[in-house]
Amino acid sequence: MGRWEPDAEGRFRAAAIELFGEIGYEQTTVAAIAQRAGLTARTFFRYFADKREVLFHGSERLQQTMVDALAHAPAETSPVDAVAAALVKAGDFFDDERRPFARLRNSVIAANPDLHERELIKMATLSAALVQGLRVRGVDEPDASLVAAVGIAVFRVAFAQWVSKSERRSYGEIVNELLGRLRALAAG
Amino acid sequence: MGRWEPDAEGRFRAAAIELFGEIGYEQTTVAAIAQRAGLTARTFFRYFADKREVLFHGSERLQQTMVDALAHAPAETSPVDAVAAALVKAGDFFDDERRPFARLRNSVIAANPDLHERELIKMATLSAALVQGLRVRGVDEPDASLVAAVGIAVFRVAFAQWVSKSERRSYGEIVNELLGRLRALAAG
Repeated sequence: MGRWEPDAEGRFRAAAIELFGEIGYEQTTVAAIAQRAGLTARTFFRYFADKREVLFHGSERLQQTMVDALAHAPAETSPVDAVAAALVKAGDFFDDERRPFARLRNSVIAANPDLHERELIKMATLSAALVQGLRVRGVDEPDASLVAAVGIAVFRVAFAQWVSKSERRSYGEIVNELLGRLRALAAG
Repeated sequence: MGRWEPDAEGRFRAAAIELFGEIGYEQTTVAAIAQRAGLTARTFFRYFADKREVLFHGSERLQQTMVDALAHAPAETSPVDAVAAALVKAGDFFDDERRPFARLRNSVIAANPDLHERELIKMATLSAALVQGLRVRGVDEPDASLVAAVGIAVFRVAFAQWVSKSERRSYGEIVNELLGRLRALAAG
């Protein structure tokens, strides 16, 4: 109780996602997650507000990482290239070691309307943050809103592809392919 | 009661949106909407399942109209141009006469997280319908998902612009401008 546990956060995450997959999200209790992780419920609440947070923990860090990448792109970088840099940088969160977790997480979210809504809201918040980041770079409307929304569109398609069954390419490869397809398609 | 009322649906919509703006969405009851419309609550429920439906009524028709436009684009039309045709066709729902209603609706939705979520889900459903429509046209992945997601991105930015304060251009003009900007931005 209260003592330091090596990688308690990671153990809770792994235990929760296993249980969500085995018995369903609704049926999984914090007590069961703690038991599976070999830790206590009290320790769980030091890391997460509730079981839903296990799935969405880290989304603020992802957003901040993308906003930082946008801000740090050289001043002469075009709006599209600056957002592309942010999309590529998001790959820090999606290395291949995390893909099994991301796949399970994705199937849990797809099966639960409330979680799906939360995911959509997260994307809308991320889009708004990118709009703001583009404005700071001096990008006017409608370009800022348009480029941010298109960037999020690419991000969602890339992420869905990355977690899809039997996909082996890295997130970064997928993003770069999609950005290339987007340019080719827009050019007609 | 039960007898035919001229444009009852339109009167309920107008009354509801007025009340949402005046006293707030949460505070507005179906009884108050019916009273304002000069009709009965019983008649209200012949048109809408609940007060939320007043705001989202018609979204299935919008989606069907866009899917039909996609399906009817000539076979040689590129995926981007076919989705562009669907976006332009959506303008049938957004003539200038409806703009004041759309503006009020938008501010009500922005002020209520539950309604905002519902709107996000509607957009996700519309995006999935466009992906399906593109697949029927023989567009493979990742192009189908990418073009649909980008199309929805353009649609959302166009709609937000159309309902924004002091905007006077038509929805069609805004969509065409954004499609042009998108091509220019993607070309670098």
